[in-house]
Amino acid sequence: MDIPLFENEQIDDLQCRGLRLIQKRDGFKFGTDAVLLADFAKQLPSGRTLDFCTGSGIVPLLLSAKTGTPRICGLELQPAVCDMAKRSVLLNGLEGRIEITEGDLKNAPALYGPKRFDVITCNPPYMKAGAALVNAADAKTIARHEVTCTLEDVVRAANSLLAPAGHLVLVHRPYRMAELISLMRAYGIEPKRLRLVYPKAEKEANLVLIDGLKNGKPELRILPPLFLQDGHGGESAELKRIYERG
Amino acid sequence: MDIPLFENEQIDDLQCRGLRLIQKRDGFKFGTDAVLLADFAKQLPSGRTLDFCTGSGIVPLLLSAKTGTPRICGLELQPAVCDMAKRSVLLNGLEGRIEITEGDLKNAPALYGPKRFDVITCNPPYMKAGAALVNAADAKTIARHEVTCTLEDVVRAANSLLAPAGHLVLVHRPYRMAELISLMRAYGIEPKRLRLVYPKAEKEANLVLIDGLKNGKPELRILPPLFLQDGHGGESAELKRIYERG
Repeated sequence: MDIPLFENEQIDDLQCRGLRLIQKRDGFKFGTDAVLLADFAKQLPSGRTLDFCTGSGIVPLLLSAKTGTPRICGLELQPAVCDMAKRSVLLNGLEGRIEITEGDLKNAPALYGPKRFDVITCNPPYMKAGAALVNAADAKTIARHEVTCTLEDVVRAANSLLAPAGHLVLVHRPYRMAELISLMRAYGIEPKRLRLVYPKAEKEANLVLIDGLKNGKPELRILPPLFLQDGHGGESAELKRIYERG
Repeated sequence: MDIPLFENEQIDDLQCRGLRLIQKRDGFKFGTDAVLLADFAKQLPSGRTLDFCTGSGIVPLLLSAKTGTPRICGLELQPAVCDMAKRSVLLNGLEGRIEITEGDLKNAPALYGPKRFDVITCNPPYMKAGAALVNAADAKTIARHEVTCTLEDVVRAANSLLAPAGHLVLVHRPYRMAELISLMRAYGIEPKRLRLVYPKAEKEANLVLIDGLKNGKPELRILPPLFLQDGHGGESAELKRIYERG
């Protein structure tokens, strides 16, 4: 199929089972966090899956390759970004498995109607919207700052759309982890698995992966640390495995 | 000074600046968790310090050696354990710096009156009181299970007794960490520093060290992982440093 590309777009080879992704040359690019999120989420039993703040569609695309989930939805607020994600789905011939929807996650319960999900993933904007940013509406700012949705919006929407024993799986920055945990618990989503990502053994953590179970009992497991680098400054064996470069 | 010992007691050399500790031969013995807690707490500026659930007095004793804090209080519920801790203080000639009080932390605000603390430490009982344990009143059960105080009791009492920018520093098990974080935030104590303790790099965490700031702004740092063993199964270099065996 011939997929149209805009002038400022490029096709990147994800080096994962032939997947390709359309991204803007000068726009927000997916990072290691999205790849780690997909790897962390794939450890759950396959089930009806929804990705909030899906952006380029990177998480649904990776989950389609790494899991047997027959149907993965992705929700994206920004029309141009959403259109790009839809074209990436077509580019990979995955229109039978991945459905990208344009919309605001604050309206997600209305958008998806009575449909409930077993797994909701999200790589949300990490930074609080500062006063200086309130008028910023470009795509990179929206991807990075809580201009259009807050962490509480994500957790509230997830709670509405999860099936009774559904999982909310997030990646975030450690500096927001305490808020994230108390928000999840306030909305009845109990953190059950947590993994800290450290650049290397002697550094502070720079990412948190968290898996919460709707209506779960309090009992958290903290998985072994994930190091991005090995002791010699190269890519760690586990990161190679996750990127399937091993 | 001649310090009386009961028949079932022994004096242990803490191998830390000459400190000695009275413990029951068949009772609850202090563990690595108390030593890690003292090391984590000593990284804060010295200030008026109170240790809840002080038991044998191990944390006040270690803090007296590792910090310049002129006055460290310890609160212990069990009369026999409290008496033992008081004798350990005398044994080390530290009665000018450490004050052990018998009492229930649920009454701590009344016990300490208007006195406020800059640092409150606690190595609380880790396990929830199961129905089968409700009648258990022996010292080991009280040290390990929430028979006489819950995690919420600890956080509530700390909130009452902390000075405005005071710190609550706890060690706990990972499986209670989500509850602990949401309780601290519910009582206005914001988690600011967190350190995960892993037996070794490829294992799940088995202890959590957490430092919360009363009335603090949300912004958590997750410090580098602490491994108890090195790659060869021996004691890690950091654990040796903490035990001052290095």
